[in-house]
Amino acid sequence: MNCKICKSKGKRTKAVIYIRHHRLALCEEHFISWFEKQTQRTIKTFRMFSKKDKVLVAVSGGKDSLSLWLALHRLGYETYGFHVSLGIEEWEFSRKSLEICQKFAERIGRPLMVFNLREEFGYSINEIAKGAGRKDVCSVCGTFKRYIMNKVCREKGFKVVATGHNLDDESALLLSNTIRWEIGYLGRQHPVLPESNGFARRVKPFCFFTEKETVSYAIVNGIEYMETGCPNAKEATSKLFKKALAMLEHEMPGTKLRFYKEFLKKGRPLFERELKEQLVLKECEVCGMPTTAPVCSVCRTLMKLKERC
Amino acid sequence: MNCKICKSKGKRTKAVIYIRHHRLALCEEHFISWFEKQTQRTIKTFRMFSKKDKVLVAVSGGKDSLSLWLALHRLGYETYGFHVSLGIEEWEFSRKSLEICQKFAERIGRPLMVFNLREEFGYSINEIAKGAGRKDVCSVCGTFKRYIMNKVCREKGFKVVATGHNLDDESALLLSNTIRWEIGYLGRQHPVLPESNGFARRVKPFCFFTEKETVSYAIVNGIEYMETGCPNAKEATSKLFKKALAMLEHEMPGTKLRFYKEFLKKGRPLFERELKEQLVLKECEVCGMPTTAPVCSVCRTLMKLKERC
Repeated sequence: MNCKICKSKGKRTKAVIYIRHHRLALCEEHFISWFEKQTQRTIKTFRMFSKKDKVLVAVSGGKDSLSLWLALHRLGYETYGFHVSLGIEEWEFSRKSLEICQKFAERIGRPLMVFNLREEFGYSINEIAKGAGRKDVCSVCGTFKRYIMNKVCREKGFKVVATGHNLDDESALLLSNTIRWEIGYLGRQHPVLPESNGFARRVKPFCFFTEKETVSYAIVNGIEYMETGCPNAKEATSKLFKKALAMLEHEMPGTKLRFYKEFLKKGRPLFERELKEQLVLKECEVCGMPTTAPVCSVCRTLMKLKERC
Repeated sequence: MNCKICKSKGKRTKAVIYIRHHRLALCEEHFISWFEKQTQRTIKTFRMFSKKDKVLVAVSGGKDSLSLWLALHRLGYETYGFHVSLGIEEWEFSRKSLEICQKFAERIGRPLMVFNLREEFGYSINEIAKGAGRKDVCSVCGTFKRYIMNKVCREKGFKVVATGHNLDDESALLLSNTIRWEIGYLGRQHPVLPESNGFARRVKPFCFFTEKETVSYAIVNGIEYMETGCPNAKEATSKLFKKALAMLEHEMPGTKLRFYKEFLKKGRPLFERELKEQLVLKECEVCGMPTTAPVCSVCRTLMKLKERC
């Protein structure tokens, strides 16, 4: 298949990607420029941030987050990488992830901040979850990462954090929330989570790109990324929802994108109306971070851990 | 596995069915009584009809509709079978379906009314769809069947029509409407479609039973039913949604039932509010049936057919 844009200019260039739901075949050069333009468009449409903002990019070492950092950097945003090193020893996962992030930061000449869980809290994420009697490591991990991101933003004066969530992630989350009719979660799911009560704004500039697109962007740009997913996520239920959507996408190209976009346009406004008044947050009695309870959930988990150990 | 109810009475009887999402193993006798009690409960919960109503049961000759007719008959409702013979010649589908419905009516000693499409309109459903330039035979067929049911109800004084739609049908329809965020359809999807403007009430007493349950009820009661689906429905997209849900159900038993029940409780009320004021219906200029347009869609299709032929 030949590149559609080259073709329109009378040239024949072999396409490196065919984006089925857009019926778009592109060569390397035109794929990269299409991808970056789309990123820019999403940032603008949802007023995620501007060239005046310092943007903290949360990088895990995977294809999505490193591609995001590269795209934002190329688009001329002032980016700062941020990596949470979780202390996962299986497959040497955390050591390798950190190395990859550091290499990438050097390549683009941007600073990378690292938060080392074991150094700061004394435990790895698996030890924390296990010690606190929690089987759902992934959800404990999510809570800790959000907490740490908020803390760093507060301390370093960042007003916005960008994460690499793609369309596969967002549509699977949407399906999971819809299958359970979690009205509250549905009302909050959006490419932008506004800043509130001392929490930084969280944005997802890649929410309309499929995983195929982000991985292709990583590959054509020669990004070295962690090819194995996190060993903790082996049985994540999100994989099931991704599988169901992949099946529908295969038979009806564009299903994922339509599902998510139509949700934002037609479904979400109805759920959003149901959201209760924003909760009043107090300072956590232990760490001072905003929370609804007297002690925030990270401090509670750590306290439980210390009691048990 | 042994029957749970027999076990609670100190007896050991082999179960004929295991209903995974209820963790319920039942012998033939207790499955039948459980199934009929659940049917009665659904009828009561949604105030579908009472013993004073004459209930028109739409029967295709498949497991769902014949099981429904049997269960309603056994529960003591005044039932009348109604079959639309569509003139589908492939696999001798329509001839066999009619025969099966007639046999069943004889077995339970209840009357069966038959509407023969070819005799009344001069064409089979495939000829109608093709002649009118429509490729979606299934949706033309749905329109015609609803029209005919409404017409018969009007002429014979029935206030309620019961159809055999099961949980697999309803949850697949729900997923299809949700994936597209069809707010109007979502607001109307319900086990009861209230009577309005000369249209009979339409009810689905089997909406909480999986296909496995209805087919088991048909089998243990020795119902002879059409085992092949309709030849026109070979590629129905509803099959895709059923497949996606079957996959989720397999990994997370109870998904379909929760998806549909939680929708009725939490999702649907939000969509229902969005429904516009009920449309004012006029009489079709050709046939006199209620319609929003000057001429109803069935008469329009038949007119187009005559123009073309």
